Amino acid sequence: MAQRNRVSLAVVKRLPKYYRYLGMIADKGIIRVSSQELSNITGLTASQIRQDLNHFGGFGQQGYGYNVEELKNEIEKIIGIDKSYKAIIIGVGNIGRAILNYRGFQNSGFNIVGLFDHAEDLVGKTITGLKVKDISDLESFMKEEEADIAVIAIPASEAQQVCEILVDGGIKGIWNFAPIDLKLPKKVVLENVHLDESLYTLTYYMNNLKDYPGVK
Amino acid sequence: MAQRNRVSLAVVKRLPKYYRYLGMIADKGIIRVSSQELSNITGLTASQIRQDLNHFGGFGQQGYGYNVEELKNEIEKIIGIDKSYKAIIIGVGNIGRAILNYRGFQNSGFNIVGLFDHAEDLVGKTITGLKVKDISDLESFMKEEEADIAVIAIPASEAQQVCEILVDGGIKGIWNFAPIDLKLPKKVVLENVHLDESLYTLTYYMNNLKDYPGVK
Repeated sequence: MAQRNRVSLAVVKRLPKYYRYLGMIADKGIIRVSSQELSNITGLTASQIRQDLNHFGGFGQQGYGYNVEELKNEIEKIIGIDKSYKAIIIGVGNIGRAILNYRGFQNSGFNIVGLFDHAEDLVGKTITGLKVKDISDLESFMKEEEADIAVIAIPASEAQQVCEILVDGGIKGIWNFAPIDLKLPKKVVLENVHLDESLYTLTYYMNNLKDYPGVK
Repeated sequence: MAQRNRVSLAVVKRLPKYYRYLGMIADKGIIRVSSQELSNITGLTASQIRQDLNHFGGFGQQGYGYNVEELKNEIEKIIGIDKSYKAIIIGVGNIGRAILNYRGFQNSGFNIVGLFDHAEDLVGKTITGLKVKDISDLESFMKEEEADIAVIAIPASEAQQVCEILVDGGIKGIWNFAPIDLKLPKKVVLENVHLDESLYTLTYYMNNLKDYPGVK
């Protein structure tokens, strides 16, 4: 792939959507799809779709459209889910356990290699074949094992400190569910799922329907 | 409050952040805060903060700043969490149960009045004091009871159909965790938590660090 410009967050956020829709289309046995057909399904304009995909090299052919399987595989590579990742979950309360059992996490090459908590009734317990370790063992764990991604599902008050151990231990990505804006070096990628902010966005629009942009 | 222009999604998305930071500041016993101090804490510029808050009427006073408790209460009203909501959860698997036990949901005036599933081993079971009803009873439930918000935590393939029952039943907001873009009338507010898209954004940036905008 030739040198390319920086891809904006808006484009990056649409890639998983394309991937999801292409999966649905492939499951129906459809071989090729035009940007206009993709537009009908996704609600994005055809020119937006062509523009987005052109960031990564042109996959479509004039008059033919896109080969569904090929485009899906290309996006898989672009998103980076053609690889496998070692993941650890910090905090095996409700959210941590939901992620542990989340199908999208298990099926896409994410291997969970460690569970951590410090609740007495959880440490030492075996959950889905993994023994829950004490968070105080995290530092030594990171020295011995390799982990790419850490899921943060502990209270906000503890999250920054734990992340510093993870950063020192060479973590590459943090999937953060704690309601806090973590401070991380730029080489460690942070992705937040702020449930409180999502819920409050919902209530805001329920109370201010005139501001609501409609289906996003 | 005077007639105001439509507030953009970007501003709406920052309100919960202000609310969270004001809660933290209030907990420290701090009485007043300047937009510059808010800027230092939130990472947003002071002028951005003033501009955002001006959408809802000016709360600060030149040379004094903002009264923390007052501003927090105002934002609470703007977000609409000074009220209470009746919520139902459709799908009490891992995600549904995590939301059911999610503190932010329980503490902010969200009263869960119904749980629904259709798994045989769940229907009829009592979870946190509520008996799980069959999804086939949803239509009659919506006729008899009032529900403002529905949490969708069922597979994507079933979500649209269930939402149509909810819309007909007068639901006002849908907090959707299924990996699908639901089609809803504009009067029903949709807020998505697409975990797959979030995870793939993380892996994209881990593999394309040059595109990563840093802490968001």
